[in-house]
Amino acid sequence: MTIQRRRVELIKRPVGLPMPSDFDICEKPVPDLGPDQVLCRTIYLSLDPYMRGRMSDAKSYAESVQLGDVVTGEAVSEVLESTSDKFAPGDIVAGMNGWQSHAVLDAGDVRRVDPAAAPISTALGVLGMPGLTAYVGLLDKGQPKEGETLVVSAATGAVGANVGQIGKLKGLRVVGIASTREKCDYAVNELGFDACVSHRSDTLREDLKAVCPDGIDIYFESVGGAVQQAVLPLLNVHARVPVCGLISWYNLTVLPDGPDMVPGLMRQVLTKRLTISGFIIFDHYDRHRDFIRDVGGWIRDGKLKYREDIVNGLDNAVEAFQGLMEGRNFGKLVIRVSEDPTA
Amino acid sequence: MTIQRRRVELIKRPVGLPMPSDFDICEKPVPDLGPDQVLCRTIYLSLDPYMRGRMSDAKSYAESVQLGDVVTGEAVSEVLESTSDKFAPGDIVAGMNGWQSHAVLDAGDVRRVDPAAAPISTALGVLGMPGLTAYVGLLDKGQPKEGETLVVSAATGAVGANVGQIGKLKGLRVVGIASTREKCDYAVNELGFDACVSHRSDTLREDLKAVCPDGIDIYFESVGGAVQQAVLPLLNVHARVPVCGLISWYNLTVLPDGPDMVPGLMRQVLTKRLTISGFIIFDHYDRHRDFIRDVGGWIRDGKLKYREDIVNGLDNAVEAFQGLMEGRNFGKLVIRVSEDPTA
Repeated sequence: MTIQRRRVELIKRPVGLPMPSDFDICEKPVPDLGPDQVLCRTIYLSLDPYMRGRMSDAKSYAESVQLGDVVTGEAVSEVLESTSDKFAPGDIVAGMNGWQSHAVLDAGDVRRVDPAAAPISTALGVLGMPGLTAYVGLLDKGQPKEGETLVVSAATGAVGANVGQIGKLKGLRVVGIASTREKCDYAVNELGFDACVSHRSDTLREDLKAVCPDGIDIYFESVGGAVQQAVLPLLNVHARVPVCGLISWYNLTVLPDGPDMVPGLMRQVLTKRLTISGFIIFDHYDRHRDFIRDVGGWIRDGKLKYREDIVNGLDNAVEAFQGLMEGRNFGKLVIRVSEDPTA
Repeated sequence: MTIQRRRVELIKRPVGLPMPSDFDICEKPVPDLGPDQVLCRTIYLSLDPYMRGRMSDAKSYAESVQLGDVVTGEAVSEVLESTSDKFAPGDIVAGMNGWQSHAVLDAGDVRRVDPAAAPISTALGVLGMPGLTAYVGLLDKGQPKEGETLVVSAATGAVGANVGQIGKLKGLRVVGIASTREKCDYAVNELGFDACVSHRSDTLREDLKAVCPDGIDIYFESVGGAVQQAVLPLLNVHARVPVCGLISWYNLTVLPDGPDMVPGLMRQVLTKRLTISGFIIFDHYDRHRDFIRDVGGWIRDGKLKYREDIVNGLDNAVEAFQGLMEGRNFGKLVIRVSEDPTA
């Protein structure tokens, strides 16, 4: 009997915010397994801002999703069938399933997830790509030195929450930027940030200045836009700006009105000797072992907290993704596609 | 008898290109020497783009010149009098004389120049700040790897000519950008660049693309503006952009018309994982010994050439500085303020 899989396919390139009409939710038969493959039942699907780029056909670091193809996405799955001697039915694995209920993947492209170590959904968040992004971005690109001031945008997001907490563990003053009062309170009271300000404030720059009395040595950039503009003038000489995302600009359809602010930005780069460095986590898997050792240890020791925002049902993925683009999620956004047998 | 010194004082903050009316050329008595000081007769005065920043009162990495003060500038001098046991009359030294015929400097702030090693004016150019800027910027910030493509703006300038030649010595493909055909020919035929294109071309981007068939791995930035815009789309993944100057923007009085290009620039930073790093040579004097050893050696071995554009007379400094801002000089611009006893 051929299993049907439910899929979210991209049928139109979104203009601005992705809309339900840009996608088709359909059922298609699961293909037969070839040699050394696994059939995966998607349990948790990760939704991440980078997916917006894949929906566009602008040249980027990775291939766009082709029209008619399933949307890209990492997931945690249960293995249902295997032609690989590395995996057996019942194993829990992580891989690039895409937005669908079942995926056939090469055994070499999936990695085992240990349900005994932590809830399996964390393989998509604090112990997955967002966690590694925070770890590499802050430690390798940010080069933090004890006593410095770190500002983290999207402070309660999957990446930001880890950046800030790792920053505290490294002896930094940590200031978050988030949307709501509730998120700001969470960053300070639960995650241990020194302060957190709302980017919805009309006085963002002044608010930020008040909580960064010694200026800013590291700005962990994931949003761009007005937040970046508020941070730039507060950067100290020799500040570092690791750039892992620019979510506020992902839905831009035209460049913002002028004037052209590039000369001002570059003047800051020169006179303050800034280092702005973009990075993509796929370049940094050589740090995965260190990451799991350190972050896994911090979680076990209760030194690093995480929060998940779990939405039920693949059919709700598009709406949840819209919420992600607009900052409505609170914690790592994950779709529960099917029952978690380990929960 | 008190010696009179001729000085160029800043009397108005320039708006746009500095004009003669922004300066006063006057004579004032030389102050008496305090303990451990030297009276210097300025022989060669260096004119450099960074001076434009000092004439402005915008916050920068160094103090602005105050109105009524002599303009900042490095010079090579003959010591006329000394209350220091480190220097004697007749010694040749380099220091921050400013735009004036005589200066009284603390002995700790001047360094000895050896007339036997090279013409003493080179202490302001190929063996001075511009040379060190090229050396540190390319080798430390640019992190060149053999076979990569380097693009150098202001290719025949005091910094650019060295960047390109050091690039060739390190096995890079070197492409220059300069103003005139004459300068481009010089870069290729005399300095050994692989190619050099004119930024006055209407088809700069296409011209550049044609001579960078493998894209650009290092862009040594000293100009900004249209040149930067032409280079950015050609940068390769993991390209480095050391920024030592932005001369095309120094005389901006308002930001350019829109749209705001910052989102486009930052998108390049992210998707191509660029590293853009501003640097100021005063932070890097720890590399001075290596620099003198390497560049001094290359000059002695005939592997590194330099060209000076020497203008006679302090009274011509303002006009010469205007020419520097507009790229009319050809080689390191130096004012011969008084007779060179070593020539």
